[in-house]
Amino acid sequence: MKIESRIEKGLSQTLNRALRTGAPPTLAAGVRYCIFPGGARIRPKLCLAVAESCGDDQPELATAAASAIELLHCASLVHDDLPCFDDADIRRGKPSVHRAFGEPTAVLVGDALIVLAFETLSHQIERAPDRAARLLRITAGSVGMPFGIVAGQAWEDEPEAILADYQRTKTGSLFAAATEAGAVAAGGDATIWRMLGERLGEAYQVADDIQDVAGDTDRIGKPTGQDEMSARPNAVLHHGMEGATKLLKQLVRDAMDAVPPGPGSDRLQKIIEKESKRFMPSEVMHDAA
Amino acid sequence: MKIESRIEKGLSQTLNRALRTGAPPTLAAGVRYCIFPGGARIRPKLCLAVAESCGDDQPELATAAASAIELLHCASLVHDDLPCFDDADIRRGKPSVHRAFGEPTAVLVGDALIVLAFETLSHQIERAPDRAARLLRITAGSVGMPFGIVAGQAWEDEPEAILADYQRTKTGSLFAAATEAGAVAAGGDATIWRMLGERLGEAYQVADDIQDVAGDTDRIGKPTGQDEMSARPNAVLHHGMEGATKLLKQLVRDAMDAVPPGPGSDRLQKIIEKESKRFMPSEVMHDAA
Repeated sequence: MKIESRIEKGLSQTLNRALRTGAPPTLAAGVRYCIFPGGARIRPKLCLAVAESCGDDQPELATAAASAIELLHCASLVHDDLPCFDDADIRRGKPSVHRAFGEPTAVLVGDALIVLAFETLSHQIERAPDRAARLLRITAGSVGMPFGIVAGQAWEDEPEAILADYQRTKTGSLFAAATEAGAVAAGGDATIWRMLGERLGEAYQVADDIQDVAGDTDRIGKPTGQDEMSARPNAVLHHGMEGATKLLKQLVRDAMDAVPPGPGSDRLQKIIEKESKRFMPSEVMHDAA
Repeated sequence: MKIESRIEKGLSQTLNRALRTGAPPTLAAGVRYCIFPGGARIRPKLCLAVAESCGDDQPELATAAASAIELLHCASLVHDDLPCFDDADIRRGKPSVHRAFGEPTAVLVGDALIVLAFETLSHQIERAPDRAARLLRITAGSVGMPFGIVAGQAWEDEPEAILADYQRTKTGSLFAAATEAGAVAAGGDATIWRMLGERLGEAYQVADDIQDVAGDTDRIGKPTGQDEMSARPNAVLHHGMEGATKLLKQLVRDAMDAVPPGPGSDRLQKIIEKESKRFMPSEVMHDAA
């Protein structure tokens, strides 16, 4: 099955199980709205591509890991968009969850998705206890304290946040978890795959920063100019547009170099190249071709 | 070790691990503020009392389960107190987390505690994979969709919520999880212990409803009159004060009767009697003595 289909099928099955008869209708609608249709699904794609590179001997485990990571990512988007953070009206080209369903539902959708992510992984423990235990800890670490995305978001309110640290926790942690989890789900070595996720996460955050400064709301499907408005760390505001663009290209090259050698490495590098182009701001992409 | 000490020690160890060097200082302070000093800790007490009644052959597992349940309970309080829900200024006799640390930190404290609860349980998988898997699913089910406290909270916004269903998901689910988890952690039979938690959860919710109508903010440490203001299901508004009081007494008697027979049952009934008196509104308690 193609990676894209595995991801959508995995998420559908997870949601169907959670939203079987009995869930409050507005919460259920908010959860579905938040997950489908998806964005680029870059984190679960990365997770499954790494799992395939490592032999993918437990495909259900890898799919569960990819689903959990995407659920956690979506939860972070819903909460980040709340009025007390970005107060964003638009996400993925449609009204944000709190605009469409109200703020109480948006808080609960995020909470429910965090719970669902771990519940999804818990169903894999009997199949492969050691791997599932590590997957639970990798994903929990990537979103929790002290170095996960919740901590990254919290650094935004600290006066002394360091740009690189902030980006590492805010975005890098879930990318690193995606490659580590893909490896662990397939019995591979997490440590040699972590660097790839870290580099891609940094690249993605710099690309996001460039789009926040120079992007177009209609094209990227969310508001721009948010970082300057919130006095939030941003690579362009920090390094200038030229510096940020140079950094982004270097990070993508570093990510390609971080793919461990092996039979699937060419294919994985192609996937990374393709996905990186997707998140590259158009100016940078033309230039980097 | 006494149950009270086990709970505080378990929570301290969990927080210390999560907040080791590197966590954003405001988030770390908010998390500690939310957990210490605690409230009645009734759910973890119940969990450990049941584990002891079942032999408690894996005390670290039971302590982890009790900690996870208390972390999830505290997370639900922080999010329930947010301006978009109860907008409560006071909790446990001090300013609510969003009043003390701001709304962004309160959202993140809740998220971080949910993650930490599951991370805490994940550390037990290698020790006892089957029990840990069940503990993860019991706790996830009790807070998530379709029947956990997140769903219970979401029913508040639905026009057709049924009082009993609402209370079962909103409060009963985490009480039921506490008794089930205590049994599972000690290798006991979850199904015969679930009823006790359900009854106690219902009793606790009715007591809470009575206090919301007739209680005193200074004594109970949180605002009153919230249910009527939010047009929220409340047993007193539904059954009248006399009816609610009668129901509460009956539910406590039912809980006592739901303790499975065995060597520890007398002791457990005593604990339940004592804890029930704690949450009984004073008028009811005098009357029930």
